[in-house]
Amino acid sequence: MNISPRPSFSVQLSAAWQSSNSLLCVGLDPDATRLPPMFAHARFALFDFCRAIVDATAPLVCAFKPQMAYFSAQCAEDQLEQLIAYIHDTYPTIPVILDAKRGDIGATARQYAREAFERYEADALTVNPYMGYDSIEPYLQWAGKGVIALCRTSNPGGGDLQSLSVNGQPLYQHVAQLAARSWNASGQLSLVVGATYPDEIAQVRRLVGEMPLLIPGIGAQGGDVEATVKAGITTQGTGMMISSSRAILYASAGEDFAHAAAVVAARTRDEINRWRGAGGE
Amino acid sequence: MNISPRPSFSVQLSAAWQSSNSLLCVGLDPDATRLPPMFAHARFALFDFCRAIVDATAPLVCAFKPQMAYFSAQCAEDQLEQLIAYIHDTYPTIPVILDAKRGDIGATARQYAREAFERYEADALTVNPYMGYDSIEPYLQWAGKGVIALCRTSNPGGGDLQSLSVNGQPLYQHVAQLAARSWNASGQLSLVVGATYPDEIAQVRRLVGEMPLLIPGIGAQGGDVEATVKAGITTQGTGMMISSSRAILYASAGEDFAHAAAVVAARTRDEINRWRGAGGE
Repeated sequence: MNISPRPSFSVQLSAAWQSSNSLLCVGLDPDATRLPPMFAHARFALFDFCRAIVDATAPLVCAFKPQMAYFSAQCAEDQLEQLIAYIHDTYPTIPVILDAKRGDIGATARQYAREAFERYEADALTVNPYMGYDSIEPYLQWAGKGVIALCRTSNPGGGDLQSLSVNGQPLYQHVAQLAARSWNASGQLSLVVGATYPDEIAQVRRLVGEMPLLIPGIGAQGGDVEATVKAGITTQGTGMMISSSRAILYASAGEDFAHAAAVVAARTRDEINRWRGAGGE
Repeated sequence: MNISPRPSFSVQLSAAWQSSNSLLCVGLDPDATRLPPMFAHARFALFDFCRAIVDATAPLVCAFKPQMAYFSAQCAEDQLEQLIAYIHDTYPTIPVILDAKRGDIGATARQYAREAFERYEADALTVNPYMGYDSIEPYLQWAGKGVIALCRTSNPGGGDLQSLSVNGQPLYQHVAQLAARSWNASGQLSLVVGATYPDEIAQVRRLVGEMPLLIPGIGAQGGDVEATVKAGITTQGTGMMISSSRAILYASAGEDFAHAAAVVAARTRDEINRWRGAGGE
């Protein structure tokens, strides 16, 4: 059902890691209440703001990750469509991850897959594994598309379920094993592991081999870059999409917001590269 | 932040159980490929189809449950807005549950809450508990709105995580305990428990007292009505929103689809009432 001529997500991501010399993923979470004043009366404020961020940071990233909730809350699905199309057209080698954390099964999940991969033409989608393999499999039917399942999240309550002990092993490690083994015959899976707990990133890395990890929680959420990189890096010196949103998007509240975003993004990329020993500074 | 003059979800639901003498919730999952031929060229086919189902079944239900994915996949968010507004205007005593299974935290979850309760004006929303209390709490900030968390789902893979043993107790029971105790200070929570496993409905009922349960899986999914009702009924003879979608929506593929839907809905309501000992036949 892959109607797009774009390469598979895993091929795009590997190429982008190399060509950009970056593990940084910029999250596009355009909070309508936090945009610079120049967008106050813009007809397509979310699109205009995100396009400026994309243009300023594209040379610095391995992926962009728009967050659907910010568009849905503003009745701005059309702007999300336009934004992803803009990224595809202007920066065709940068993969786009739609962050929607979908969690449903069967016919309903197939509708969400159509939404993500046909309507929005995302290269990858985040999903929630609580409903089991049935909530992952419908997305895998879209050959080449990336499916990024929540494993260990960086919020304070993330441990309410994920850290519970299942046969002496935390639940999130059980999810990592399922993802690495029986769920990933097609090689389309990645996992979300928050940056707040580097020891847990290391545990997941040990369980999943070279599988890509999407790692939110640096920047505004305070994760430690050195510990995160050392815990998650693969033998290839890659394997991570380290995501930052607010620290980059809102680096300045003034007319220089895009320049300020690029400065913070470059600094974050370089800080990451410093610890993976890949140069970049 | 409750901008709506509607009563709280729990008040609406209790009143609807009594006034309709029904525990049936009709799920509005309008699959564009399964609509009767008369809608083939309709400009607002999903809305028109669902409105006809709503009008035919309104006297028979305690709630309606539109499923967001079917609208999102068709770029039909406007039709979902119109549908919920139509139900509120025409059947103001019937609560509307938006089935979107949202799973996110913090600022992002607050955006999803705005989408559900402000944009769509839903009375309740389904959510996914994998990210813990942080993924429930932002919705509880909307006083009176219902928050319905996944607990035990009826799909074959539902047990991949939910049945794992945590301290000798399946994970879903742990979720039920969290929902019944520390997460539910405001009394806004309900749980999703699939009809496929009546013994597990009974376990959840034992743990959560009189908390409402949303129970999908009868009808097309094959759950046993007698066992489901006996397992989940409260001492009040209520406590359940037993949901059926496809068996009602697609009872006939012809021009009599709405009449056929009403016949199946009435039969289902009556079958439910037979086992709760509340008359209705």
